[in-house]
Amino acid sequence: MALADAIRGTSERRAGAAVLAALRERFGERLATGEDVRRAHGHTTTYLPNQMPDAVVFAETEADVQTLVRLCAAHDVPIVPFGTGSSLEGQVNAPEGGVSLDLSRMDRVLAVHPEDLDCVVEPGVTREALNAHLRDTGLFFPIDPGANASLGGMAATRASGTNAVRYGTMRDNVIGLTAVMADGSLVRTARRAKKTSAGYDLTRLLVGAEGTLGIITSLNLKLYGIPETVLSGVCAFETVKGACDAVIQTVQAGIPVARIELLDPLAIRAANMHSALGLPEAPHLFVELHGSAGSVAEQAEFFAAITAENGGGAFEGSTLTEERARLWKARHSFYWAGMLLRPGARAVATDVCVPVSRLSDCIADTLDDIGRCGMIAPIVGHVGDGNFHVQMMVDVESPAEIEMAEAFIARLNGRALAMDGTCTGEHGIGQGKRSFLQAELGEAVSVMRTIKTAFDPQNILNPGKILP
Amino acid sequence: MALADAIRGTSERRAGAAVLAALRERFGERLATGEDVRRAHGHTTTYLPNQMPDAVVFAETEADVQTLVRLCAAHDVPIVPFGTGSSLEGQVNAPEGGVSLDLSRMDRVLAVHPEDLDCVVEPGVTREALNAHLRDTGLFFPIDPGANASLGGMAATRASGTNAVRYGTMRDNVIGLTAVMADGSLVRTARRAKKTSAGYDLTRLLVGAEGTLGIITSLNLKLYGIPETVLSGVCAFETVKGACDAVIQTVQAGIPVARIELLDPLAIRAANMHSALGLPEAPHLFVELHGSAGSVAEQAEFFAAITAENGGGAFEGSTLTEERARLWKARHSFYWAGMLLRPGARAVATDVCVPVSRLSDCIADTLDDIGRCGMIAPIVGHVGDGNFHVQMMVDVESPAEIEMAEAFIARLNGRALAMDGTCTGEHGIGQGKRSFLQAELGEAVSVMRTIKTAFDPQNILNPGKILP
Repeated sequence: MALADAIRGTSERRAGAAVLAALRERFGERLATGEDVRRAHGHTTTYLPNQMPDAVVFAETEADVQTLVRLCAAHDVPIVPFGTGSSLEGQVNAPEGGVSLDLSRMDRVLAVHPEDLDCVVEPGVTREALNAHLRDTGLFFPIDPGANASLGGMAATRASGTNAVRYGTMRDNVIGLTAVMADGSLVRTARRAKKTSAGYDLTRLLVGAEGTLGIITSLNLKLYGIPETVLSGVCAFETVKGACDAVIQTVQAGIPVARIELLDPLAIRAANMHSALGLPEAPHLFVELHGSAGSVAEQAEFFAAITAENGGGAFEGSTLTEERARLWKARHSFYWAGMLLRPGARAVATDVCVPVSRLSDCIADTLDDIGRCGMIAPIVGHVGDGNFHVQMMVDVESPAEIEMAEAFIARLNGRALAMDGTCTGEHGIGQGKRSFLQAELGEAVSVMRTIKTAFDPQNILNPGKILP
Repeated sequence: MALADAIRGTSERRAGAAVLAALRERFGERLATGEDVRRAHGHTTTYLPNQMPDAVVFAETEADVQTLVRLCAAHDVPIVPFGTGSSLEGQVNAPEGGVSLDLSRMDRVLAVHPEDLDCVVEPGVTREALNAHLRDTGLFFPIDPGANASLGGMAATRASGTNAVRYGTMRDNVIGLTAVMADGSLVRTARRAKKTSAGYDLTRLLVGAEGTLGIITSLNLKLYGIPETVLSGVCAFETVKGACDAVIQTVQAGIPVARIELLDPLAIRAANMHSALGLPEAPHLFVELHGSAGSVAEQAEFFAAITAENGGGAFEGSTLTEERARLWKARHSFYWAGMLLRPGARAVATDVCVPVSRLSDCIADTLDDIGRCGMIAPIVGHVGDGNFHVQMMVDVESPAEIEMAEAFIARLNGRALAMDGTCTGEHGIGQGKRSFLQAELGEAVSVMRTIKTAFDPQNILNPGKILP
């Protein structure tokens, strides 16, 4: 397995007896070294081999994080930040050993400022927990990668998901943050003003850095008013191209769709099996519209006209909470639904993102490729952004299948790059996409390495991630 | 003048005969050393003393920029990038001497991708030139700092302006860019996909870096469809607090205002003098709404209800192009209008930005402060973002007045920081706000210095800016 070799650490920097003793003294029962706990902190939602840390520390405060970083720095031991472990490119693996820093107990909502439409949270708060906390305020946090990820992890991987077409990604929704740097210092990147031109944008530098430049210890996030009216619905198309063209025209027309998701026929089959949607096995768009009652009605009418022009069936939407929830639960369960297509196989989820004008070509070529391989690999996508996922169902015990999957991923990335796209719209680089990052950005990767070396000369913060 | 001392360079690194000869050989007539040209490239729209470069080079290609950077690096001579010279915090001054790099001749629109709603431009293209170029496409670029600035300069200073409340700032509207780094290498920060999670966000790091980390040589910018309906109008209020409260409620209600600008009574007087608006000398909001006809009508109705609740007069808007243009021309001419309030004085424009909930308090305290000083200093603001400007009319020949203005700016910044705001919403740090950056972000400034040192160890890229 070429990939297993590729993700091997460049050095062994195990947490030895001395640092473990120091950690035990400082953290007591909050240091865990049992194999089950360690394995659970290696990567779980990918086919990359699990690379266990030597120990897990459960932090409860910023001071805990600072202490841990200083101790690990003193002993030259890596630190791998961990939220909920739902990342997809090996971000929480420990290729060189070291300590997994579990931030899930830092789960307090520190402040909500309804007048300013923002809040301050610790990194272990999950997106669902935040929205539950906000329930009585009339506000919500829209970024929704599917999994109930931690907000710290979402920021660290620059997550986005179904709502990004309207509300942006984590890049756009973190006003500022605090982070512990490799020397243990605590930095606050921005005040609470909605905009600023005060110096280098450290917020955006740490968002998406996957814990390799600093460890996020709190986040100041934008919030939005819950729309007066929400309408969700589906629309079947004769062809994937028809669906993609409808998406392009929708975006160009400035219809402020909140969600616009493509599911290919195989994805519909899986969703039908898992969630009993009873949809015809044709390409579909799942759509959500937000706004006032009048605005949503106008959007729906405009969208229906566009779909009709592109071989789409009737667009039937519902504003009923229950029906909407059922639809999006089916979409969010897709990772599990896909597995029903080939029981016993593992889901290998990968994503690329291209300019919207190239989306239809990119998906068509990818479907051909899947067909040639004879793979079972449904496609779903946040197509308003030009971002789509291929979920390959792979027997990970079969070296031949792994090899085929790796070759497929390489072709998919080459295809996206040839269309001036990116090797990852939202999964991040982690371990799995480092070589593609080099192909995508070339000289810019040297600049990234300059930053990494300047910030973390010992390379103790999540080593083996992002940089090839 | 304390500030004049504060902006003095830490070293003299003049462009001597050797580098000038090399530049002459390479650039011929595109190297200028006459005093008038050099003075015009020192800072012109601020009260900071003009610090002339030793020479000006007019670049026409990326290769020119690379050559210049390599030559200057070899001779340890500073480079100060120059767009149109409309920045307000001394960004184009040359405190240590060196070469001003004039990018205004790199003014080609390299590509427009209507289906993807983006374009690629050279840094010397101005925002007005871009919008003129786009005229037949039905698309526009919304970011509008008032001055007809260059897009490279706007990116470098993270400009925003009147439309930012709806369309974001330059931070949000640059998809990717190319830049020449301090070693002369050319870096492309991102592909053309709408979103990406591929590695460190170098785009956002260079946006707002004021040319201190790299020199922007092209920009991939987001575009937007020209809205079907645009309505502009004004609304008078009894009090500034009433106007601010109306703004808060408008933002909270999620009305997607495209512009919402406050002018205090003195600002209205100036605008009346300059543009014959004939408005009563009361606090006003200037508002613009974008959308479909139905959506704009709905927004206008909702906004009028909010203003009525907050002591506002009738909100009367117009969709006529001519009337709208007249209103926004008056707003954009404000820098010049303010000067009519005190003929012979210089305008010292400064800005801060606070959480919207604190805006009313911050402006009220600032008006009290202005009154106590006996200054003539109208206030205008992009209040939907919590961002406002004070334009002090100062006799710059009077040390006492300069001292008073500097003390006032210090108090204004202290007030904004005490409210968890920023010392600059959109003017940048440049030379003028370096001490406030330290007060605002503390330890984070050390991290910025780490980046600067790693990127530009010789400190040849726009030295004396941003970092205290």
